[in-house]
Amino acid sequence: MLITEIRDYLGSIFSNIELHGSGETLITGPAKIDEAQAGQVSFIANEKYLRYLADTEASLVIAGSSVPLESVAQGTSVIRLADPYTAFMLLLQKFSRPRTVAAPGIASTARIGRDVTIGNNVSIGNYAVIGDRCVIGDNSVIGAHSVLLQDVAVGSHTVINAHVTCYDGTVIGCRVIVHSGTVIGADGFGFAPQQDGSYLKIPQLGNVEIGDDTEIGANVTIDRATMGSTVIGKGVKIDNLVQIAHNCRIGDHTVIAAQAGISGSVTLGRFCMIGGQAGFAGHLELADRTNVAAKSGISKSFSEPGISLRGYPAQPMREQLRLEALQRGIGSMKERIEALEAEMAQLKSR
Amino acid sequence: MLITEIRDYLGSIFSNIELHGSGETLITGPAKIDEAQAGQVSFIANEKYLRYLADTEASLVIAGSSVPLESVAQGTSVIRLADPYTAFMLLLQKFSRPRTVAAPGIASTARIGRDVTIGNNVSIGNYAVIGDRCVIGDNSVIGAHSVLLQDVAVGSHTVINAHVTCYDGTVIGCRVIVHSGTVIGADGFGFAPQQDGSYLKIPQLGNVEIGDDTEIGANVTIDRATMGSTVIGKGVKIDNLVQIAHNCRIGDHTVIAAQAGISGSVTLGRFCMIGGQAGFAGHLELADRTNVAAKSGISKSFSEPGISLRGYPAQPMREQLRLEALQRGIGSMKERIEALEAEMAQLKSR
Amino acid sequence: MLITEIRDYLGSIFSNIELHGSGETLITGPAKIDEAQAGQVSFIANEKYLRYLADTEASLVIAGSSVPLESVAQGTSVIRLADPYTAFMLLLQKFSRPRTVAAPGIASTARIGRDVTIGNNVSIGNYAVIGDRCVIGDNSVIGAHSVLLQDVAVGSHTVINAHVTCYDGTVIGCRVIVHSGTVIGADGFGFAPQQDGSYLKIPQLGNVEIGDDTEIGANVTIDRATMGSTVIGKGVKIDNLVQIAHNCRIGDHTVIAAQAGISGSVTLGRFCMIGGQAGFAGHLELADRTNVAAKSGISKSFSEPGISLRGYPAQPMREQLRLEALQRGIGSMKERIEALEAEMAQLKSR
Repeated sequence: MLITEIRDYLGSIFSNIELHGSGETLITGPAKIDEAQAGQVSFIANEKYLRYLADTEASLVIAGSSVPLESVAQGTSVIRLADPYTAFMLLLQKFSRPRTVAAPGIASTARIGRDVTIGNNVSIGNYAVIGDRCVIGDNSVIGAHSVLLQDVAVGSHTVINAHVTCYDGTVIGCRVIVHSGTVIGADGFGFAPQQDGSYLKIPQLGNVEIGDDTEIGANVTIDRATMGSTVIGKGVKIDNLVQIAHNCRIGDHTVIAAQAGISGSVTLGRFCMIGGQAGFAGHLELADRTNVAAKSGISKSFSEPGISLRGYPAQPMREQLRLEALQRGIGSMKERIEALEAEMAQLKSR
Repeated sequence: MLITEIRDYLGSIFSNIELHGSGETLITGPAKIDEAQAGQVSFIANEKYLRYLADTEASLVIAGSSVPLESVAQGTSVIRLADPYTAFMLLLQKFSRPRTVAAPGIASTARIGRDVTIGNNVSIGNYAVIGDRCVIGDNSVIGAHSVLLQDVAVGSHTVINAHVTCYDGTVIGCRVIVHSGTVIGADGFGFAPQQDGSYLKIPQLGNVEIGDDTEIGANVTIDRATMGSTVIGKGVKIDNLVQIAHNCRIGDHTVIAAQAGISGSVTLGRFCMIGGQAGFAGHLELADRTNVAAKSGISKSFSEPGISLRGYPAQPMREQLRLEALQRGIGSMKERIEALEAEMAQLKSR
Repeated sequence: MLITEIRDYLGSIFSNIELHGSGETLITGPAKIDEAQAGQVSFIANEKYLRYLADTEASLVIAGSSVPLESVAQGTSVIRLADPYTAFMLLLQKFSRPRTVAAPGIASTARIGRDVTIGNNVSIGNYAVIGDRCVIGDNSVIGAHSVLLQDVAVGSHTVINAHVTCYDGTVIGCRVIVHSGTVIGADGFGFAPQQDGSYLKIPQLGNVEIGDDTEIGANVTIDRATMGSTVIGKGVKIDNLVQIAHNCRIGDHTVIAAQAGISGSVTLGRFCMIGGQAGFAGHLELADRTNVAAKSGISKSFSEPGISLRGYPAQPMREQLRLEALQRGIGSMKERIEALEAEMAQLKSR
């Protein structure tokens, strides 16, 4: 796209947009401000990157309305508008080449079971295995080597990347993305202890249901319910290597960072943010908009919406930060005790 | 099954069993007490669920011998006996449809190496790859896309789900279940530091041995030994995303929750319970029946059987809980120091 | 190899090497000193294993120059030299059978895309899928079921084990080893929050680049950059189940233990050692030769090379260990406060 075309495209979405410098350069792709080459577009959404404006090699920078233009590098044009971050995200989408997860149509090497229903414009990759009675909605893509056992339902416009495993009965919504190596619907970890100390496997009869517009990272595990369903809501975002145990319910638009572990029968509200490597005891509940700091260990329910939690056992952020500050200051407490003891000894010796 | 058939089945196992209400309803499946519909059976094994008895829609509830029957919902029958939990687990197995991990027989798309020995009634799924000299016992199932490298031995009645990888020389017992995405026998993480700061790979010549009746979750990693074997005992239960490093020995009937990490050459006793996200330093040993709390970091051996550990570095539960209570009370300690300082200043000013 | 052949092989590398005992026994493999059988070679590199010398069944033990020979078991020969550990590692390589990740040549069931370039002596396993325009260097091996999407470049002498997924545009160097279940180049976890609380996916346009001589464990996830590249340096060693987020840069010869999680845009220096289950906040930087203790949580950058970090939030080792000691001693501090309070009450009552 020419710079003038980018200006016109952004101008069709944002008001008060200004182009400074030449509009005739051809922009071939995006780059970070400190790595951009001639022909690339970059952005500044944070004051601390302003210093790069003077010597970036980007041909175009998207920046905030008040960004000063005096020191901009020669040969660099600037588009100024109120929300440069969102503007740049939209440009990223313009420059994004769609990945070919699977070639159009059903690969000749894919194995399709009996009574499978496949929508229009579905792509199924090499060596994919689709079990009996599966349903795949219009425009969805199943990557190479993915395995759907029996009775799996996939909505429309959903992308299952290569090497995903869905156990029997899994239900996946529309516009969902599942990355490689993820296993959905394996048996929950349920065992009844026997008198001799060994364990009896509790049959896991339920399934997993995943809502529309959810994205699930790589090598994630989401276990099927013992009875009923493990439920992932709509618009949920799950990072790599996350564990979600049987019978969990994850509320709509909740975000879970990498390597977090959600134990069995936990219910998370909507719009929560769960930090990386956080862990949860079983059977607890968090209200909507709860934030959990990375590495926290949640040991009980918190019913008030909108709070932030941290620590192990986790407590509301303010109390926890105050406690941690006190704990870091323990050295000076010890010194004050020593000083008191010295003064006391002196007083008593009089 | 009719309710009377369920009563007769449970009556053949348990004594002192009583049916209250109609026995003629057909029960089609199990459900949780708060989600059950007409035609379903549920259970109450915990007093706090008693309140559901009045308005459940379940046609049958399995409950304890002393559960009061006055307020039971109309149309709901009750079977009372001493151990409703185990009784319901047995019913779950009755209603469990076996999953078809692979259709009977050897899929035409499976690749079988040379000198492979396959028992009676074995199922091997689509695109499975079985290396030279593998041995697969009677009635075992190898899921679609699973890869067994050379010289892998699988016992009888074992289920390897789809997308499992077993490196060369892995030995798996009888009645074992391995879930999808799990990698058994990859190289241990062993490198000899060189003088220039780089690392020389230490060959990993050993293998992994997995005992009978063990269940291994999804996306687990169990590394082969440098020499000898990494040994998983009998009846061990390993949850998703667990890491077991080279040369570990996990005792019989030990349970390891999700995302725990066991470093190299650790020996765990029998009947241990390891919490989620717990971590172990290398080369240490825990006695039989050791419990490790979630997120603990075990930094040394504990040779006394039956203890519970918690914290990082972990110590026996009672000491650790006492320490954590003291640490949470640090704010009041600070206030007491301040009060003492004020009193001291007053005393001295006299 | 005969013992004399082993002596001659080690003598060609090390000086001051002495053989004690018979040289005519045939050595068939290596074993640990406490498990070795007749016909096996073992080693002692640590004084605490000296006690095994008296009753080992090994036919040959590699030991340090000053190891006493009086009490050596009958039938056991000893080779003494200055560095028995490295000597034994070299013997391990001698006895190592190369694993057959894929039979020589391209399996008839592998699917090769258009415009793919394959070097000399490449092996590609059953059901591997190689996307359009991939390049695979000489002597490299692609395991069964591995999937390379479009435009993936693999150097020479590299081994991609079974069940690895490389997304489009991944670049892998020479002499790299990637273990099973690992996913390279999945989308980074980037979402722009919208006013209604939902998230807009930020396109992930970059790729992953992996340097020469790197080894990556099983079920690892390394995400592609949003723009530019996620870069793994040369000689890096990554253990199982590690998460490396988008836009990270891992310096040469850095070692990362199992289940560690590196958040987005983190830069690690060269020769760092990262402990298991350690976690990193985003956008921070560690200098060369930084050591991070297991389970630490790194919350800010540390620019001084060669330091050790521990704790959450992590700080330099010495301060952290001092802080932890003070925190463990909080019980005695409380007792001292109580004693002071009693003394104070006594003083005031006078």
